[in-house]
Amino acid sequence: MQTIYATFNKSITPLNELKISVLDRAYFFGDAVYEVLRVYNGQPALLAMHLERLTASLTHLGIKCLSGIEEDLLQNIAKNKVDEGMVYVQASRGGSHRMHSFFKQELEPNVLIYTQPFLEHPSEAEARQGIRAITHDDLRWGCCHIKSVNLLPNCLAQSSAHQVGAQEAILIKDDYVTEGSTSNVFIVKDQITMTPPLSMNILPGTRRKYLIQALAAHGHHVIERPIKKPELFAADEVFITSTIKEALPVTHIDQQAINGGRMGPMAKRARDLIVAHVSPAKAGVQRRS
Amino acid sequence: MQTIYATFNKSITPLNELKISVLDRAYFFGDAVYEVLRVYNGQPALLAMHLERLTASLTHLGIKCLSGIEEDLLQNIAKNKVDEGMVYVQASRGGSHRMHSFFKQELEPNVLIYTQPFLEHPSEAEARQGIRAITHDDLRWGCCHIKSVNLLPNCLAQSSAHQVGAQEAILIKDDYVTEGSTSNVFIVKDQITMTPPLSMNILPGTRRKYLIQALAAHGHHVIERPIKKPELFAADEVFITSTIKEALPVTHIDQQAINGGRMGPMAKRARDLIVAHVSPAKAGVQRRS
Repeated sequence: MQTIYATFNKSITPLNELKISVLDRAYFFGDAVYEVLRVYNGQPALLAMHLERLTASLTHLGIKCLSGIEEDLLQNIAKNKVDEGMVYVQASRGGSHRMHSFFKQELEPNVLIYTQPFLEHPSEAEARQGIRAITHDDLRWGCCHIKSVNLLPNCLAQSSAHQVGAQEAILIKDDYVTEGSTSNVFIVKDQITMTPPLSMNILPGTRRKYLIQALAAHGHHVIERPIKKPELFAADEVFITSTIKEALPVTHIDQQAINGGRMGPMAKRARDLIVAHVSPAKAGVQRRS
Repeated sequence: MQTIYATFNKSITPLNELKISVLDRAYFFGDAVYEVLRVYNGQPALLAMHLERLTASLTHLGIKCLSGIEEDLLQNIAKNKVDEGMVYVQASRGGSHRMHSFFKQELEPNVLIYTQPFLEHPSEAEARQGIRAITHDDLRWGCCHIKSVNLLPNCLAQSSAHQVGAQEAILIKDDYVTEGSTSNVFIVKDQITMTPPLSMNILPGTRRKYLIQALAAHGHHVIERPIKKPELFAADEVFITSTIKEALPVTHIDQQAINGGRMGPMAKRARDLIVAHVSPAKAGVQRRS
């Protein structure tokens, strides 16, 4: 596998060799935020939307905002010569001797960026046959609109899915669907497409937002409303969206077939819209959206 | 300030110089657990209780259990020649290229230990005059019995307290007291001492457990029951317990005086019990309890 180069506070090092101070607050407290961007044809997709969300996460946590991120990110993609892949950006509050409170600490954020190529398209095979999901208690904290690295509950949920041969965990809070462990969830019933509203303590996913806009532009309005767990199983279609997976049909949940275990028309349309509009030719346009 | 030596996977390095791979899962996901132990007269207090909780945290998360921790910890205290202070132990699941799921990943935990001296006793001055607390939404995840480093909500709560000149944040979930941002909470009303039960998604604090046992041995039984937020303000006394702070009276909450703003008799008794029994002379006994 080719060397992956990381940019850490503007210095470039092979990711495997990069060592950082153990005093970073990401290490002690998960006091850091991140973004994952999809790279198509050497260009990051929906760059402006991701940078806007990164800024929102930093602002919510009172972490100093970052300058030059866009340039560093583009340089890192170029340095890694990645055509198809993903770029990861993490900014921690900074390093200091361990104390919970950051009040009056004047810290300099530590910024990590690296770009990783995909050896194969990360979702094409899954799109053809659909993915299996489990339902799992949503154990996450109360501020999931902040994209922080306090990700232990997500890791536990996804590992539980993998353990039973499923690919995703759909999180349930008080009998309502919130989102997937690394994705947003949509359902279709009687040709109406629905997704939980942002008010339900979920991450404002870039593909979620993009898809809602793209469908609206084609005259199909997604309804944002709370979705009860039983509605998942009664749905005509269930699909997820994510930066890396784009859009994928969920054909089985807790071993129960959805839509007879096949991809439905709305999941296909969602996938086509995201792949076609976010990817190659139009990436340049999206960057300035 | 004297150099603090860290033991990282059994190698000793000055903490300020210690650098670790950025691929550690603590850094990307907060996928790590920790313990903080109080050192009195060069001995860690309640060592067995802390090691038992560390093992419980590791087991809950499916992280490989650790051998030789006790020896490494004692060696680190000795290496740092710490008489009065604290020792910090963190174990992450290990390092690998970033992916949420740890299923089928055979990782080796990364273990950090360091001991830090106290320049002054960390709670004597606060005990004399009592501390100020605020109430704050409990935004933490659903598994607070696991002592993980997903600590962002605790950091935010404690920073909010410091911002208004208070020292601690008492967390409130659905109008019930859970615990402090880094402590357990007790109240006293009509000579009955009460604390929220472990079933309320709180950390099983070592000083909480120790104090309940010590008071029971003296014929005073602490009632573990849900405590409504208004009961805080109507209490005769409120106090907190923690490894570092031992026991401290909370004399003001949200700027309202409790017990006329003075330490009450039960807070004093709790402090005396913890300080006397956990500290100097009996540390050796406690280690084998």
